[in-house]
Amino acid sequence: MSNIDAFSRLCAQLSKLPGVGRKSAQRMAYYLLSQPGEQVEALAEAILQAKSTVHECRLCGNYTDHDLCSICADDRRDSSTLCVVRDPRDVSALERMRDYNGKYHVLHGAISPMEGIGPDDIRIKELLTRLDGVQEVILATNPDIEGEATAAYIARLLKSFPDLKVTRIAHGVPVGGDLEYTDEVTLSRALRGRTEV
Amino acid sequence: MSNIDAFSRLCAQLSKLPGVGRKSAQRMAYYLLSQPGEQVEALAEAILQAKSTVHECRLCGNYTDHDLCSICADDRRDSSTLCVVRDPRDVSALERMRDYNGKYHVLHGAISPMEGIGPDDIRIKELLTRLDGVQEVILATNPDIEGEATAAYIARLLKSFPDLKVTRIAHGVPVGGDLEYTDEVTLSRALRGRTEV
Repeated sequence: MSNIDAFSRLCAQLSKLPGVGRKSAQRMAYYLLSQPGEQVEALAEAILQAKSTVHECRLCGNYTDHDLCSICADDRRDSSTLCVVRDPRDVSALERMRDYNGKYHVLHGAISPMEGIGPDDIRIKELLTRLDGVQEVILATNPDIEGEATAAYIARLLKSFPDLKVTRIAHGVPVGGDLEYTDEVTLSRALRGRTEV
Repeated sequence: MSNIDAFSRLCAQLSKLPGVGRKSAQRMAYYLLSQPGEQVEALAEAILQAKSTVHECRLCGNYTDHDLCSICADDRRDSSTLCVVRDPRDVSALERMRDYNGKYHVLHGAISPMEGIGPDDIRIKELLTRLDGVQEVILATNPDIEGEATAAYIARLLKSFPDLKVTRIAHGVPVGGDLEYTDEVTLSRALRGRTEV
């Protein structure tokens, strides 16, 4: 397909998407070329539309195309509990569980000295301005080095609010998992975090 | 993410791509929202650009953004051999092997009574107009029901050209495959098609 420039350019662009390699990009490009024009335009338009209208919620930082996201705007949700996550996709994951009725705070990143990301580069200041009326902050950053560092940093900051309860999501053996294949750090956390039955 | 319309619409559009499910579509959508505007526009533009400039080669039906595709326009390739394939992506696959120096004819489909696709719906007529000076037609449609039916149909049509050699690609055990896991039809074809060593 040597001199088909537009085709190669499409493949190159598609292969930048997460989880898309050279072969799947080519497959997608062939698929798009075989589709009716309107459908291809609908995809391109949805991409541009989403990029231009979706922005961060003024309060929590989650994605929305309104001023406030649907969760912040929902009066039935408990404003006294804030769950702090790294990314909007973590909000999606937690919402899928349909078990949490509080609100969120999205940091848009995690502290990572290796990548030069400090506390001022993520939405920690914005969290501190939202604590009025909040009784509990749940630190639900990822259980990796950056996520733990971020949780520890925020927990230390929040020490200066004496009436505020600060919690961290539990580490342990995943449901359906297998003890034999669980790493030692997780096992040790699962043991330390044991609860009475 | 209930009322984020633009986001849901983007996910819905992305999940129409081949090999992309609900979860990967969401992952791609989040990725796109986190990218700089120019990069997202580059993707949308590459999609529209490819769709508007890439069309079928006047001779063989392969995708090109010129009048003739790079293979048809290449004088060093042997015009006396035509390899008949179903889709442009099959041309890519055969070209990757760097072993074939003839030209192609892309049918853009296969005969399938189940899906209401008859001989007149694919580029068989166009093949018949290209046989001047051709010595061999290699039928390289897929080894599935539709591909076999298409190959058989074309082979029968080409019987009326007495000097034309018509061949079908070999069926057999794939290189690196395992006899134990090869289906019986393929095994039986591999046995029938055995060659002397």
